[in-house]
Amino acid sequence: MLASPIAPTVDFDADGEQHGFLKLPYSRDDSAWGAVMIPVAVVKRGEGPTVLLTGGNHGDEYEGPVALSKLAGELRAHDVCGRVIIIPFMNYPAFQAGTRTSPIDAGNLNRSFPGRPDGTVTEKIADYFQRCLLPLADYVLDIHAGGRTLDFVPFAAIHVLDDKAQQARCEAAMRAFGAPYSMRLLELDSVGMFDTAVEEAGKVFVSTELGGGGASTAKSVAIADRGVRGFLRYAGILEGDGQPGTERRTTTLLDMPDGSCYTTSNHGGLLEMCRDLGETVTCGDVLARIYDTSRTGVPVVEYRARRDGIVVARHFPGLVKVGDTIAVVAIVVERDVVVAG
Amino acid sequence: MLASPIAPTVDFDADGEQHGFLKLPYSRDDSAWGAVMIPVAVVKRGEGPTVLLTGGNHGDEYEGPVALSKLAGELRAHDVCGRVIIIPFMNYPAFQAGTRTSPIDAGNLNRSFPGRPDGTVTEKIADYFQRCLLPLADYVLDIHAGGRTLDFVPFAAIHVLDDKAQQARCEAAMRAFGAPYSMRLLELDSVGMFDTAVEEAGKVFVSTELGGGGASTAKSVAIADRGVRGFLRYAGILEGDGQPGTERRTTTLLDMPDGSCYTTSNHGGLLEMCRDLGETVTCGDVLARIYDTSRTGVPVVEYRARRDGIVVARHFPGLVKVGDTIAVVAIVVERDVVVAG
Amino acid sequence: MLASPIAPTVDFDADGEQHGFLKLPYSRDDSAWGAVMIPVAVVKRGEGPTVLLTGGNHGDEYEGPVALSKLAGELRAHDVCGRVIIIPFMNYPAFQAGTRTSPIDAGNLNRSFPGRPDGTVTEKIADYFQRCLLPLADYVLDIHAGGRTLDFVPFAAIHVLDDKAQQARCEAAMRAFGAPYSMRLLELDSVGMFDTAVEEAGKVFVSTELGGGGASTAKSVAIADRGVRGFLRYAGILEGDGQPGTERRTTTLLDMPDGSCYTTSNHGGLLEMCRDLGETVTCGDVLARIYDTSRTGVPVVEYRARRDGIVVARHFPGLVKVGDTIAVVAIVVERDVVVAG
Amino acid sequence: MLASPIAPTVDFDADGEQHGFLKLPYSRDDSAWGAVMIPVAVVKRGEGPTVLLTGGNHGDEYEGPVALSKLAGELRAHDVCGRVIIIPFMNYPAFQAGTRTSPIDAGNLNRSFPGRPDGTVTEKIADYFQRCLLPLADYVLDIHAGGRTLDFVPFAAIHVLDDKAQQARCEAAMRAFGAPYSMRLLELDSVGMFDTAVEEAGKVFVSTELGGGGASTAKSVAIADRGVRGFLRYAGILEGDGQPGTERRTTTLLDMPDGSCYTTSNHGGLLEMCRDLGETVTCGDVLARIYDTSRTGVPVVEYRARRDGIVVARHFPGLVKVGDTIAVVAIVVERDVVVAG
Amino acid sequence: MLASPIAPTVDFDADGEQHGFLKLPYSRDDSAWGAVMIPVAVVKRGEGPTVLLTGGNHGDEYEGPVALSKLAGELRAHDVCGRVIIIPFMNYPAFQAGTRTSPIDAGNLNRSFPGRPDGTVTEKIADYFQRCLLPLADYVLDIHAGGRTLDFVPFAAIHVLDDKAQQARCEAAMRAFGAPYSMRLLELDSVGMFDTAVEEAGKVFVSTELGGGGASTAKSVAIADRGVRGFLRYAGILEGDGQPGTERRTTTLLDMPDGSCYTTSNHGGLLEMCRDLGETVTCGDVLARIYDTSRTGVPVVEYRARRDGIVVARHFPGLVKVGDTIAVVAIVVERDVVVAG
Amino acid sequence: MLASPIAPTVDFDADGEQHGFLKLPYSRDDSAWGAVMIPVAVVKRGEGPTVLLTGGNHGDEYEGPVALSKLAGELRAHDVCGRVIIIPFMNYPAFQAGTRTSPIDAGNLNRSFPGRPDGTVTEKIADYFQRCLLPLADYVLDIHAGGRTLDFVPFAAIHVLDDKAQQARCEAAMRAFGAPYSMRLLELDSVGMFDTAVEEAGKVFVSTELGGGGASTAKSVAIADRGVRGFLRYAGILEGDGQPGTERRTTTLLDMPDGSCYTTSNHGGLLEMCRDLGETVTCGDVLARIYDTSRTGVPVVEYRARRDGIVVARHFPGLVKVGDTIAVVAIVVERDVVVAG
Repeated sequence: MLASPIAPTVDFDADGEQHGFLKLPYSRDDSAWGAVMIPVAVVKRGEGPTVLLTGGNHGDEYEGPVALSKLAGELRAHDVCGRVIIIPFMNYPAFQAGTRTSPIDAGNLNRSFPGRPDGTVTEKIADYFQRCLLPLADYVLDIHAGGRTLDFVPFAAIHVLDDKAQQARCEAAMRAFGAPYSMRLLELDSVGMFDTAVEEAGKVFVSTELGGGGASTAKSVAIADRGVRGFLRYAGILEGDGQPGTERRTTTLLDMPDGSCYTTSNHGGLLEMCRDLGETVTCGDVLARIYDTSRTGVPVVEYRARRDGIVVARHFPGLVKVGDTIAVVAIVVERDVVVAG
Repeated sequence: MLASPIAPTVDFDADGEQHGFLKLPYSRDDSAWGAVMIPVAVVKRGEGPTVLLTGGNHGDEYEGPVALSKLAGELRAHDVCGRVIIIPFMNYPAFQAGTRTSPIDAGNLNRSFPGRPDGTVTEKIADYFQRCLLPLADYVLDIHAGGRTLDFVPFAAIHVLDDKAQQARCEAAMRAFGAPYSMRLLELDSVGMFDTAVEEAGKVFVSTELGGGGASTAKSVAIADRGVRGFLRYAGILEGDGQPGTERRTTTLLDMPDGSCYTTSNHGGLLEMCRDLGETVTCGDVLARIYDTSRTGVPVVEYRARRDGIVVARHFPGLVKVGDTIAVVAIVVERDVVVAG
Repeated sequence: MLASPIAPTVDFDADGEQHGFLKLPYSRDDSAWGAVMIPVAVVKRGEGPTVLLTGGNHGDEYEGPVALSKLAGELRAHDVCGRVIIIPFMNYPAFQAGTRTSPIDAGNLNRSFPGRPDGTVTEKIADYFQRCLLPLADYVLDIHAGGRTLDFVPFAAIHVLDDKAQQARCEAAMRAFGAPYSMRLLELDSVGMFDTAVEEAGKVFVSTELGGGGASTAKSVAIADRGVRGFLRYAGILEGDGQPGTERRTTTLLDMPDGSCYTTSNHGGLLEMCRDLGETVTCGDVLARIYDTSRTGVPVVEYRARRDGIVVARHFPGLVKVGDTIAVVAIVVERDVVVAG
Repeated sequence: MLASPIAPTVDFDADGEQHGFLKLPYSRDDSAWGAVMIPVAVVKRGEGPTVLLTGGNHGDEYEGPVALSKLAGELRAHDVCGRVIIIPFMNYPAFQAGTRTSPIDAGNLNRSFPGRPDGTVTEKIADYFQRCLLPLADYVLDIHAGGRTLDFVPFAAIHVLDDKAQQARCEAAMRAFGAPYSMRLLELDSVGMFDTAVEEAGKVFVSTELGGGGASTAKSVAIADRGVRGFLRYAGILEGDGQPGTERRTTTLLDMPDGSCYTTSNHGGLLEMCRDLGETVTCGDVLARIYDTSRTGVPVVEYRARRDGIVVARHFPGLVKVGDTIAVVAIVVERDVVVAG
Repeated sequence: MLASPIAPTVDFDADGEQHGFLKLPYSRDDSAWGAVMIPVAVVKRGEGPTVLLTGGNHGDEYEGPVALSKLAGELRAHDVCGRVIIIPFMNYPAFQAGTRTSPIDAGNLNRSFPGRPDGTVTEKIADYFQRCLLPLADYVLDIHAGGRTLDFVPFAAIHVLDDKAQQARCEAAMRAFGAPYSMRLLELDSVGMFDTAVEEAGKVFVSTELGGGGASTAKSVAIADRGVRGFLRYAGILEGDGQPGTERRTTTLLDMPDGSCYTTSNHGGLLEMCRDLGETVTCGDVLARIYDTSRTGVPVVEYRARRDGIVVARHFPGLVKVGDTIAVVAIVVERDVVVAG
Repeated sequence: MLASPIAPTVDFDADGEQHGFLKLPYSRDDSAWGAVMIPVAVVKRGEGPTVLLTGGNHGDEYEGPVALSKLAGELRAHDVCGRVIIIPFMNYPAFQAGTRTSPIDAGNLNRSFPGRPDGTVTEKIADYFQRCLLPLADYVLDIHAGGRTLDFVPFAAIHVLDDKAQQARCEAAMRAFGAPYSMRLLELDSVGMFDTAVEEAGKVFVSTELGGGGASTAKSVAIADRGVRGFLRYAGILEGDGQPGTERRTTTLLDMPDGSCYTTSNHGGLLEMCRDLGETVTCGDVLARIYDTSRTGVPVVEYRARRDGIVVARHFPGLVKVGDTIAVVAIVVERDVVVAG
C-alpha cells in the first residue's frame, strides 16, 4: 500500500511540548501547491502510555475543540508520565467551515475509516489516523456532540464489544470521564466509524456526545474539561490527587437496546418538541408535533414515544424533513452512580 | 404611491375562521408567473379590537411560528370578541429557507420598513404590513428569538417611547405576556424596524426574544403559548377566567441602558463561553475566550464583562468572527414581579 | 439626467446593412474593464418608417432570437424602404444564460422600464431602449414565448388602449402578423413593461407568445418568420406581392377579460395536466391534478376551470409550487378570421 | 458483500395495499441523522407474478411519476392476481430537484448499476434495486421520457437480446404497452444501465420514451396510463375484458440500426430545428441550423440528415453546445401494427 | 441626512499611534449581530496637515495593502508633523475575498461615491469616506493596481482639473511619488469615483496603477514604499533629508488623450499578447491574437494598435471575452524627467 | 478492461492535416445526450516518429494552449516527416473554465493517471491518454506554467530516471527545447502524474514551467514557440536549417535536490515577496513577509531562504493561506549552456 501523503511537523518521539501540523498536500484551483495543515500538539515525558485525544471528527461539534485547544495550551511535559497526542480538529476542513462534513469532498470522517492514502482528502485523513496514529496509542478519547442538527444530554459512551476485558477497560474509562450520563451502545451499523477502527485495534476507547446545536456552553465545556482530565488520570498519564476536577460526582447509566428508541419523521414541516432533553417519557406520550408550513388550519401531525425512558437526543433545527430523526429515548439502567471522588 | 401588489385571499371583514394567503406575484427564472404565498389566518367575531400576531419576521426564529401555527389551528370565532390576524411566517421566503434574511434578495425584513410597493420582495412585504395591515390593528405582538447565531434568556420587551401613555400600555401588555424576563429597551438605532413602524402608528406593541440557536424547545414554546394567550386577554379579545395559562407567575425586569452592555469580538476563532445565559456577572469577569483555530499553543484571548448584570444574550455558533457580538449583559431592575395570577 | 453609458458601434443613420453591438461597460470581478456587448443589426435604405424588432426580452424564449437572427442575416438594404433595427437578444446576459432574468442582477427586463442610466445592468438596458431606441421607431414588434416555465398556444397580442386610433393600428398590425391566435389583452398590471413604454410613446406595438418550454420548433419558428415579414409589410418597409409568407391564412380572436381566466396553485407537487393547450373546456372541468411527492396513497388535489373557453397557457415543468399559475383559459371571440391572402 | 443500508417500511410479502418508504440513511450537514425516503407502494393479492413498475429513474421525466402515482392511489388488492411493486420516483433526490441526476452526488442512476452498498447515495439505490428488488420481480417496466434537454416521439422499447425467447417476451410486452411508436434498439453502450441489469437477470423488460422537455401533457400521460394497464394485463396481473384502455389501437415499429441515426453538434449557439418530431426526412435534408449568439450577420451552420427516416428525438433547449445530440432519425419498420383491441 | 452607521474605534484627534477599526454593523444570516471591521491606523503629532492613505479600493490590488500595512506598523508619532490616516483595505469585504468588488453586494467601491448611509455595505463605506474622512484630509493618495484581470506599467496619475492651481499641486505630488511612469488623464467618465469625490472636495489627490494580475512583486512594492514616503514628504509630514527612498530617480510622462488608446475585443477566446507592457508600438502593429477555443485550424483573429505609443495596460487572464479591453496604448510626453534627488 | 468511451473524429493513420475532436460522451443535467469535445489536430506525412504535444493539462496555464493552437493552424503535412499529434487543451473542461482542475469533478488531470474508462470525466481523459495516445507516441512534450496561483522562471524539465539512456535522451530533448532555464528534478511524489505515465512507457519526455499567474506574455509564448520547434527538430520531424527559432541561445541548468528548496507558509495573510523570480538568494535572506489582514500594527511574520540559490517559483496571489508554498529556491548547476545554434 502507498505511504500516507501526510507528514507531521512534530516528532512524536521527542520529550517536551510541541505544537505543529499534520501536513496534507492538497492541490486545488486556489492553491496549486497548497496543503491542509491540521494542528497537532504532543506533550511527552519519558516512558509511559500514549493517549490520543481527538475533537472535530465532525466539524460542527465544539466541546472537543475547546477543551483540547485549552489543554494543548496548558499541559506541560512535567505534568505527564508518557505521551499525550492532541488533535482538536480532526476533520480540519470541516471544522474551518463549521460543517459536519468536509467542504472539499463532502466526506463524513466518521464514516470514512479505514480510509485510503490515494483517496479524497477526508479518506487521506482517515488513513493517517488508521495506519500512523492508532498504532502509537493505548487510549483514545474522541469527543463528539450533536453538531448543528442534533442535541444530546451530555454522555460518555462505550460499545458492547466481543472482548469483554476490553469492554470493561473502556467502561472504566467512561466512568473516569465522569459525564452526567454514561451510555452503553449496541451499535447497529458501525461501518466506517473511527470508533470501530480504534476498538478493532484493541485500544481503550471512549466517545462522547456532550450537547449540540453547533454551539457549546460554559457548562458543556466544563464537562469536557473534567472528562479529559479524568480520562488522562485513568490512563495513568496525569496524577490526580487534590487536583481540580477530582471532586466527587455521579453519572446516570443509560442503554439504547434497539431501534424502538429512535423516532424518525415521515413528514416535513415546522417542528414542535413536546418534551425536552432529559425529561422522562412514557410509551405513547407525544414527543413532537409537526406543522404544515405551506398553510394554516390543517391538522397537526403527532409523533409519540415508542418506549419508556428519557429523551437523550433530539433534532435541533426548527424545521424538519422527511427522514430526519426527531428524538431518541434511552432506558435508564442506574441513576447516581459515583464516578469520581 | 402605487398600490401594493399583494392581494389577500381572505376577507379581513368576515366573521368566522379563515385560512388563506397573502399572494405576492413573483416572476422568476423557475416560475415566470409564480407568487410568494404567505399563509395568514383570521379569526373574527363581531365588533372589538384587532390584534395582529406575527412570527417569522426573521426566518430562523421558531417560537413565534410554532405558537402561532398552533393558535391558528385551535382558535375558534366563538372564543374571541373582535379580530385576531395571525401571520406565523412574516418573511416567508426566509422562513422556508430557515435563514434570518430572504434568500431572494438578502432582505432583513426588520430593517426594511416602511418598504416599497415596487421594491424587492422583502420591501413589498414590509410595505404591505405598513400600509395595509397596521391600519387594521390596535395591538401588535411580534415574536422573535435569537435565530441561528444568537441565544437569549426568554424575555418580552418594550421600548422607551416619547408618548408615555402609549409606553405604559405597551408595558402593561408586556407584563400580560408574562415571560420569565421583561426588558425595557432604549433602542439606539431603530431605522427600518417593524417595531418603529408599529409604535409610530400609535399601536400597543410588544416584541420578544424567547431563545435562539435556530431551534425551539418545549419550554420556550410554552412561554410563547402562554404569552400569546396573555396578550390576547390583555387586549380584551379572549376571556381569561380559569383558562390554561392564567396560573400565577412572575418576571424579572431588565434594562440595557447603554453600549457597555455589549461585548464585540475583535478576534476570529473558536469561542468558549465562560458564563452561560442567565448567570450573574461582575464587571471584569471573563465572559468568553477565543482560541486560534490555525494552530495550538498560542495565547488565548479573553473578553471581560464591562458592567455588572446578568448575561442575557450570547453569540451562539462555536466559531466567532471579527465584529460579532459575543455577549450582552443587562441590568436587573427588579426580580419576581408578579405578572399573572 | 445622465447620458446612457451604452454606446452603439453602428450608425443608425447610415444606409446599408450593419452588424454591430450596443456596448455597455461592465466592470466586474472577472473583467475590470469589460463590457456587455448586445448584438444589433441595422438595415436601412432611404427615407421611410423605422421598425424596431426585438427578441430575448426574456432570455429563455427562442422564436424571437431565431427569427430575428435569420432575418438579420438575410435582409438586404435593397429589400427595404426605410429602416429596420433588429435586436434579437434584448436582455443579452439573460439570453446567454438561457434564463428569464439576468444572471448579473436578477433583472426581469420587461419589468424594468423606464430603467436608469446609473442603475443595474438590466436597468441600463431598459433606459437605452426607452430614451435612445424608442424615439427612433414608428413600429415595434417584441417577440415573446413562454420560456422554460410556461407554454402557450401561439398568439400575437395587443392591449386595450385609451387611444382607440392607436389601438386600431396595433390591431391591424397584429392581424398582419397572422399568428394562429390573436389576443386582445386588458393588462391588469403593466408597471415596468416594455409594452407600456412603447405604447405610451405612441408607437404601433405588437407583442407575441409563440410557444414555450425554453425551446422552439420548426412550426413555431415558421409562425415567427411569417409574422415578422407580415409586420414589416404592414409597416410599408417590405413589399409583399407574391412573396413567401403571403399565402392566405386565418387567426382565432381571443380575449382574457378578467382574473377568472387564471388558475393559481395553492399546492406544491407533481403536476398532471388534464387538458392540453388549445383544448376547449367548460367551467368546472378538471384542468389539472397535483400529486404529493413525499408519499403515495394520499388523495390527489384537483383544479377545475373557472370559466368556458380554450386552454391558452399552462405551467410547463412537471413539478409545481404553491403560487404558480397552472393554466389560463381564454374566451374565443371569433374563429377563422382571415389575416392574409 | 455488505448488506444494503436501505430498509423498506413495507412488507413485500403481505397482501393488501401498502404505502411506505425505502429508507436510506444519509448523514449530511443539514441533518446528521437524516435519511432519503423513497416512496414505494405494494399491492398484492395471493400468488401470482410480480411486476415492478418504475418512474423517475431520471429525475426530470414526468410521465412515469404521474402515471405511477395515479396507479398507486387507485389500484386495489382485489384488482390484482399477484403483486405490483410501484416506485414512481426511483432516483428520488433527483426527482425532488427536478434534475436528471442526483443533486447529492451528480449520479445518473441509469449508469450506476449494479451499484454499491457502501457507495454514493445513487449507487446505494442502484444496489438495492439490483440485489433486493430485481429478485422479487418477473416483469419490469421502466418509464422514461426525454427530460429537460431532450424530446421524443412517444415509444416503448426493447433491446436486441441474445436470448431470443426472452426478447420475444419483451417484444410482446412492448406491444401490450401499446405506445404510438415501438422501438427495437441495438444498444451500443449499455454499461451501468438498469435495462441491462434487468435483462441480464432474465426478466421481461420494457422501457419507454414518452415525450420530454421536463414536462408531461394530458396526451403523453394518457399513453403512459394505458401502457401501464396493458403491461399489467400482459403479465396476467390485471384482467382486461371491457376495461378502460382496452380499445383497439396501433403502433409504428421503428429501428435505430447504427450511429448514422444520430446527429451531434460541433457548434455551440442558438438552435433552429428545421424538422419537428415525427416528420419524415430524406438523407441530406436540413435538420437544424445553429446561429452565432455573439453577433449577427455571420453565416449560419446547417446540419443535415444522414439517412432517411423519421425524426424521433431532438435536443430540446433553445441553446445548443458543442457535443450535444441535435436529433435522432429512426427507420420505420412497419406502420399501423395493431397492438390492442 | 442620516448619520453614518460606521463608528471608528480610534480617536482621530489624539496624538500617538493608534490601531483600530471602522466598525460597520452588518446583520446577516451567519451573524445576526455582526459587523464589518475595517482596519485603520492613525499616526499623529501636533498640528499640521492630514494625509489620507488608502489601498484596497478594489479588493484584488496588492501594492497599496502591502505598503500601507508596512507603513502602519513602522511609522511612529515622533516621525511625523501632523496626521497620517492609513486605511490599507478600503473595501474590506472585497479585500478579504480577493476580489475587485464586494462579495456582499457586488459593489465596486470606486463607482459608489458619494454613497448612502442607508444603502448597501459598499455604499455605506463610500458615504463614510465622503462625509467623515475626506473633510479631515488635505492630501489623499489612493493606491491602485490592475487587479486579477488587468496589468499595468507602474504609474502615478492625476486628472486634468478645472482648477489649474489644484491640478498643479496634484502634479507636483505625483512627481514626488516618483513612479517609473506618470500619467496625465482626461477621465471620460468619472461618475461615482473616489477620485472625483476627493478632487471635488479640493484636496491634493494622486492615484496609481502599480502592476496587476492580483499579485505584487518585490519591485512593485518598492515603488509603492518609496512613493508613499515621497508623497508624505511632499505634504510636509515627513522630513526627507538623507532618508531611504530619497535617492535620485526619474519618471516618464505619459498621456492618454482619447478613446483610440483603448482596444476592445469583439471576440472571445484564447488570448496571445504580441507586445508586452512597456513596449513601443506603431499604429497598425499586431497587439494581440485571439484563438478559437472550440476547435483547432480556424483563422486567428488579430487586433492592431490604433496609434503610436507604448503599451501601458493589458488584459491579464489567458482567456478573453467579448467586450474586454485587450490593451491600452499611451503617448509618451517626455522621458527621464527627474522626480527626486 | 472496458474500452475507452472516448472516440476520436480524426484518423490518426491518415496523411495530411486533420482538425477534429476526442469525443467523450457526458450525460448531465443540462444535456442528457451531451459530450465533452476535446480539440485535436493531427499532421502527418509518411513514415517517421510520432510526437505528442500537449497543453492545458492544468486548465489555467496558457503558453501551451497558445503555442499549440498556433502550431495546429500553421503546420502543414509537407513540413513534417512522421506525425505530430497536437492537443492544446488536455483537460478541456478545466481549460474552458480557466481553472486548474475540472469543474465537472474537481479532477487534477496530472494526478489522475492511469485513469479509468468508467471513472469520472477526468479519469476517462487520463485513461484515453494512457491506453490510446501514449502507445502511438515516441516523443511527448507537455507544456505547463504556474497557473493562477504560482509563477515560475521559464524552464524545461526532466526527471532523474532509472534508465539512464532514456534520461539522456530526455535531457537532450530538454536542451533542444532551449528554455532560459533547464531543470533536473528528483520528483518526491510522482503518483498519478502524466509525466510518470509517459516515462514508464519509455518515451522521450520533456515538461515545462514557462511562467504563470494565469496569463501568458509575448515573451513567454515566444519561449514556447521556439521550444516546440526545437523539440520537433530534435525528434527529426521538422528540418531545422536556417529556420526561425534556430538562432543561437543558452540555458541555465538548475537542480532542486531536496525539500529545503521549498518554503511553506504556516500563516495566512497578505503576502509581500521580498525577492522576485530569478533573483539570487543566500540562506537566511528574507524571502517573504506575511501581514495580518484583520488589523494593523501587529508584528509581521518573515520567511527566510533555507539554502543558497535562485528563486524559481513563487506563490502568485496577493493573499496566502496556511499550507501554501511561498517560494522555491533552486541550485544553479551551470550557467550559459549553449542549447541551439
